Amino acid sequence: MSPARSRVVALSGGVGGAKLVDGLARVLDPGALTVIVNTGDDFRHLGLWISPDIDSVVYALAGLADAVRGWGRRDESWNFMAALKQLGAPDWFQLGDADLAMHVERTRRLAAGETLTQVTARICGALGVGARVLPMSDDIVSTRLETADGWLDFQEYFVRRQCRPRVQQIVFEGAAAARASPEVLAALADPALRAVVFCPSNPFVSIEPILAVAPLRALLARCAAPVIAVTPIIGGAAVKGPAAKMLRELGLAVDASAVAQRYQGLLDAFIADASDPAPEPIEGVTLVRAPTLMRSAEDRASLARSVLELADRLS
Amino acid sequence: MSPARSRVVALSGGVGGAKLVDGLARVLDPGALTVIVNTGDDFRHLGLWISPDIDSVVYALAGLADAVRGWGRRDESWNFMAALKQLGAPDWFQLGDADLAMHVERTRRLAAGETLTQVTARICGALGVGARVLPMSDDIVSTRLETADGWLDFQEYFVRRQCRPRVQQIVFEGAAAARASPEVLAALADPALRAVVFCPSNPFVSIEPILAVAPLRALLARCAAPVIAVTPIIGGAAVKGPAAKMLRELGLAVDASAVAQRYQGLLDAFIADASDPAPEPIEGVTLVRAPTLMRSAEDRASLARSVLELADRLS
Repeated sequence: MSPARSRVVALSGGVGGAKLVDGLARVLDPGALTVIVNTGDDFRHLGLWISPDIDSVVYALAGLADAVRGWGRRDESWNFMAALKQLGAPDWFQLGDADLAMHVERTRRLAAGETLTQVTARICGALGVGARVLPMSDDIVSTRLETADGWLDFQEYFVRRQCRPRVQQIVFEGAAAARASPEVLAALADPALRAVVFCPSNPFVSIEPILAVAPLRALLARCAAPVIAVTPIIGGAAVKGPAAKMLRELGLAVDASAVAQRYQGLLDAFIADASDPAPEPIEGVTLVRAPTLMRSAEDRASLARSVLELADRLS
Repeated sequence: MSPARSRVVALSGGVGGAKLVDGLARVLDPGALTVIVNTGDDFRHLGLWISPDIDSVVYALAGLADAVRGWGRRDESWNFMAALKQLGAPDWFQLGDADLAMHVERTRRLAAGETLTQVTARICGALGVGARVLPMSDDIVSTRLETADGWLDFQEYFVRRQCRPRVQQIVFEGAAAARASPEVLAALADPALRAVVFCPSNPFVSIEPILAVAPLRALLARCAAPVIAVTPIIGGAAVKGPAAKMLRELGLAVDASAVAQRYQGLLDAFIADASDPAPEPIEGVTLVRAPTLMRSAEDRASLARSVLELADRLS
């Protein structure tokens, strides 16, 4: 690769994707990483604007993520929730005391007229996050699911109903009218782009909402830099979340191949887990196997290095 | 008194007044007490609608007030504030983690179209508060102070500037257009009214904002039940807050007499502290001395009994 091709763009949902984002940040120069984050999960709750995937990515990059619980901030307390419950207010969505500051500050700045991109940049600056964390759009896009129990908003499905209802269809409300932000477009147009990485996030509700925002799918389809996806499915299961259940309910095979096929026309390479059989060949896509389960910081960095080495080989 | 005259209305600001409110609740039958609370201190902060005096009264009545700190909830934690500070957000107004639930829930219900009176009733119900806690008005009234440093919003003066600027004038913005709520009017029109009590709150910024809301001053001036005020000034000082400093800066004597004179035309009786000299006579006002410093729950109940006995003597 040319030394000028130093910049990496990652597409990510929440917790699973954020681990590879963290790995990339660990092995790249400060400032070389831009993360385009799904905002289809965003919603207004208790009057607060909550962006769960942005927060997961920011907490991971700031070293504030809770490794044991798997979401939210570490060293968190829950006195707000206890008091909220005492008041008889809706308490199905857990908001930690420190985490609340994120939502209150975001809501305040949005109400003052800042874009979500600007608010996120300020928060990253305050928390010492060197990577650029970009919402996929400053327009509102809302993931909704048609299920056997009817249409559900994403958080209603994901948190309140704990992904139990059988999924029939997923739509991204507002996506047709939404546009990628100028910052997202600039990141993908950067001549120094070394690679675009689809993190091991849920394809249906984390990566595809991003792809639904024009003109991102078209830009990625003709991207000059290698586009590489990492499987979220290992051994027929998702490491976390409902990806495997969704594959099954949508009549797809529960394996890495099925995920790779969702991204057809966009990918130069796909990384399946080393423990799985090689995925079925896809024309024009280099299929690679590597350890993708990230239990430790070293696992994250190691997978990030694998992705970048693959990108450099493909360039 | 006739046994039918069982109901008591108290006018109160925050912490100091809330102590006597609590005392009254301890000695009255459940449901006999209605508290009309100052909302001139209310303000929007971080997107949340904060009603400090209502919260102080509710916490006192729910047994949730912090006795040591003197404001806010007991067993409070401060992780929200720490995280907010980390984000570089405004952190001059302290919001405890559990206390936040009150502001979030209030803001949510107000945004959904409920009145502050309705929201407060729901919160009281949820916290098991038997007394009726009524905002003085459902219209917004904002106490503002002209000081040697210019005009300041109340919380800017009270919290951010810690009452340091010299006060020249106090206004209640919005009071001219505001109206007392139907619930407040009904409480004062109740034929079973036994007494109206001005709690030992700051006359300038706690009781007078209430009196500024039409038609409360006029109603109190011709109230059938005895109207009794308790001094907030003991030994030339306020137990808490800037009442003494304000008396001085406004060119008034720093004593109980000066407070009693503020309420001229409204009172049937005034209770000065037992340790102070008898106040200067005021025509038509019975002047009484009693222990008014409330250090314990028993002190609160004892002062409440003194007030009610005086009311019954005057009836």
